[in-house]
Amino acid sequence: MSKGITTRAEDYSQWYNDLVLKAGLADYSAVRGCMVIKPYGFALWENMQAALDKMFKDTGHQNAYFPLFVPKSFLEKEEGHAEGFAKECAVVTHYRLKANPEKKGSLMVDPDSKLDEELIIRPTSEAIIWNTYKDWIQSYRDLPLLINQWANVVRWEMRTRLFLRTAEFLWQEGHTAHATSEEAIEEAKRMLEVYATFAEQFMALPVIRGVKSASERFAGALETYCIEALMQDGKALQAGTSHFLGQNFAKAFDVKFLNKENKQEYVWATSWGVSTRLIGALVMAHSDDQGLVMPPKIAPLQVVIVPIYKGEDSKPVIDARANDLIAELRAAGIRVKYDDNDNTRPGWKFAEYELKGVPVRLAMGLRDLENNVVELARRDTKEKQQVSIDGLNGYIVKLLDEIQQNLYNNALKYREQHITPVKTWDEFVSTLNEGGFVSAHWDGTAETETAIKEKTKATIRCIPLNNPPEEGKCILSGKPSKERVLFAIAY
Amino acid sequence: MSKGITTRAEDYSQWYNDLVLKAGLADYSAVRGCMVIKPYGFALWENMQAALDKMFKDTGHQNAYFPLFVPKSFLEKEEGHAEGFAKECAVVTHYRLKANPEKKGSLMVDPDSKLDEELIIRPTSEAIIWNTYKDWIQSYRDLPLLINQWANVVRWEMRTRLFLRTAEFLWQEGHTAHATSEEAIEEAKRMLEVYATFAEQFMALPVIRGVKSASERFAGALETYCIEALMQDGKALQAGTSHFLGQNFAKAFDVKFLNKENKQEYVWATSWGVSTRLIGALVMAHSDDQGLVMPPKIAPLQVVIVPIYKGEDSKPVIDARANDLIAELRAAGIRVKYDDNDNTRPGWKFAEYELKGVPVRLAMGLRDLENNVVELARRDTKEKQQVSIDGLNGYIVKLLDEIQQNLYNNALKYREQHITPVKTWDEFVSTLNEGGFVSAHWDGTAETETAIKEKTKATIRCIPLNNPPEEGKCILSGKPSKERVLFAIAY
Repeated sequence: MSKGITTRAEDYSQWYNDLVLKAGLADYSAVRGCMVIKPYGFALWENMQAALDKMFKDTGHQNAYFPLFVPKSFLEKEEGHAEGFAKECAVVTHYRLKANPEKKGSLMVDPDSKLDEELIIRPTSEAIIWNTYKDWIQSYRDLPLLINQWANVVRWEMRTRLFLRTAEFLWQEGHTAHATSEEAIEEAKRMLEVYATFAEQFMALPVIRGVKSASERFAGALETYCIEALMQDGKALQAGTSHFLGQNFAKAFDVKFLNKENKQEYVWATSWGVSTRLIGALVMAHSDDQGLVMPPKIAPLQVVIVPIYKGEDSKPVIDARANDLIAELRAAGIRVKYDDNDNTRPGWKFAEYELKGVPVRLAMGLRDLENNVVELARRDTKEKQQVSIDGLNGYIVKLLDEIQQNLYNNALKYREQHITPVKTWDEFVSTLNEGGFVSAHWDGTAETETAIKEKTKATIRCIPLNNPPEEGKCILSGKPSKERVLFAIAY
Repeated sequence: MSKGITTRAEDYSQWYNDLVLKAGLADYSAVRGCMVIKPYGFALWENMQAALDKMFKDTGHQNAYFPLFVPKSFLEKEEGHAEGFAKECAVVTHYRLKANPEKKGSLMVDPDSKLDEELIIRPTSEAIIWNTYKDWIQSYRDLPLLINQWANVVRWEMRTRLFLRTAEFLWQEGHTAHATSEEAIEEAKRMLEVYATFAEQFMALPVIRGVKSASERFAGALETYCIEALMQDGKALQAGTSHFLGQNFAKAFDVKFLNKENKQEYVWATSWGVSTRLIGALVMAHSDDQGLVMPPKIAPLQVVIVPIYKGEDSKPVIDARANDLIAELRAAGIRVKYDDNDNTRPGWKFAEYELKGVPVRLAMGLRDLENNVVELARRDTKEKQQVSIDGLNGYIVKLLDEIQQNLYNNALKYREQHITPVKTWDEFVSTLNEGGFVSAHWDGTAETETAIKEKTKATIRCIPLNNPPEEGKCILSGKPSKERVLFAIAY
């Protein structure tokens, strides 16, 4: 196959699009800003979902499902929330079509079906969920309420990019209710740690745990915790957020509970979410000019076996040995594919699975089998070696772990090389141009933050958790600062 | 606890609502016609999803995800399809809200954000998917294309009922593309059989496999295969459909492929779906006046253990024995809960888990433990017995299978007693009043079908597969008929 992938050096952004499209992760759709997640991309998402869902359940959460629609008046109730989302809301105004009398075969919106109140397609579900929680929470005995939802949401973005920013995307949103502020903050931090663990252990993606500056907070939150990752082009990507919402939504929707002292009190809240955007992060963190590089733990396929037939006689011999091996690998829980399609040649298949980022490729030829070996190729290092068939199963299990760890180590090394402390404005600007996180003093005001963003496009990605105190001067205003924060150009 | 459940004899419909609400399966929402699926109901849906998803994958299907929105012009392309769904479409017309200048704190639809073309929230996804398949299919080598999607859909129904008929519901929709008519028909039948197997083996719900009459077909289909179940009130419920779509959508969206003879040909299609409606069927098929009765294979909880504490000393002893047992049960893959909540009494818990339909309840008291026994109660038969703790694990594994089979047998017996062949119109009407399926001759015309529906509210539920030929006369028109069909009043 001819891959036709733009290299990263040529055009990073085009390289990304080429990979997503050609490796079969996603496709553009006819609907502005919406994408189609193709089977290979969806299988990846399913693996990510399964790992996250287990972590949510292990921390006591249950799944539920709330309506797609949010009445406009609900969105209005929490003022900051309303302001934050109003500009990107898809609005349902009618509920029926009818035949267009002026054009045969065409349909028109039936004006008689206008809704009394417009319905917003959920951009996030705090409003509809807190309106429901009002009926579910009466006493401290009903708390904590720990609920998660897997759903589609719509935010009408003007500029969209496959996975990274689409009008509709898939995500999970946790919405929890607590009796005290402390418990809610603890929950928000716990779920941030779940996200960080997932990113690092499953996606092989090192992340920085931190909190957002006030102006980067979720609309309606008192504190937004986040994990930030670094892509190979030096841009940062917000990989997940967990919000402490205080009593804002409880007050907006009048959700009170009788506490242990028998007094009515507003409920404390969190919400937290990650989305299909993580797939974009995965692509940009590990892949290369030959294609995707999938971390084994969530790879849709972990091993592909390509038979190298020579003459008709070789097929039954190779197939039989392959089938034995596949049975062993499957028994060990490994996702393996045998590609014996005879419409394409081995070389084409090698390129195809390299593009798809399958961690381990085995090539099985007759002569190799006679010597009791196969050719094994690692996707991450591109190393090839002859490996004995005896004990191959155990070897592969270990190798997959090694590849997972290697991807993480590489990404971590890259990130550590790209966190640069700076002292002056000039240093700040020149370091930003080189990419990566820039650690700098900031005077803590939204004005300075905005001015920096306007001058450089850089935003404060986060104030790292456990940030060491350090006296300094703001890189722009020169005013006193007590700690460094991380700036970057971000996706 | 006081259950406050209406009995079936009093008011079947209210009994159903009481069960769904009080057992915590679902709740009404503030959005007209939409429901909230509560954690217990969603856990049930997850178990159903997992079983179905495995069956889909085992038959070669892959999951993918397509946009929520269908441009109006796409819906128009297949005429029958458009007619079928136009009257129940939620329509997005704008993509932005703005502050209402006339009312502080309120939002209004921004008239400047009107879409050039309205977007329909998918009522089903044939249109958006076949528009995409156009780009994916060029040659017979791209076929068959076997794709499934788990998604939410919206059909603006005027009268809604929890699970049975809601404006938004969750479902899966398979959309497959084939090179020949025969293959497509085979696929439609294969998936009907998957649904029937799922209903019978997992939901303990016997179903009749059949085809719909022309007027009951899916909008855009050439043939609709269906499974029909019978509820305890004698009404039928359509539990799943699988459609042979012929080349209708391929023609509407111009999807052609190069066949093996190197000629361009339109692609053949199927689609098939089941939804959260199945949960309604489950409730109505097995439950009783005390609450839900869950089939063990998909029950969110299969076993609940209630400790009967007497004095502080008994707690550590009972807890220790219970924890051992729970570890054993979990190791055997059983979903078990230990309810040691000390805010409620054992009697209250018994009633609660009876309401929730947990198949097996164990009560553990100190004296029982001294005798090395527990009290075991079956939800289906309400039998209680003392069972030895030795070998309890294996006993429960077998018992769960027995309960599953018993539920199926009871439902099957009920259904077999409620398929009544009739000869005359009077017999037809009186039998319909008693409930169940009525097997009768029909002249095959849509006119007669409509007339029967208008007179009795009965519809042709299906023409059973492998229906024996039988000469007869139509119960209404007296015209000749070659086979019997099944009529019923349906949900």
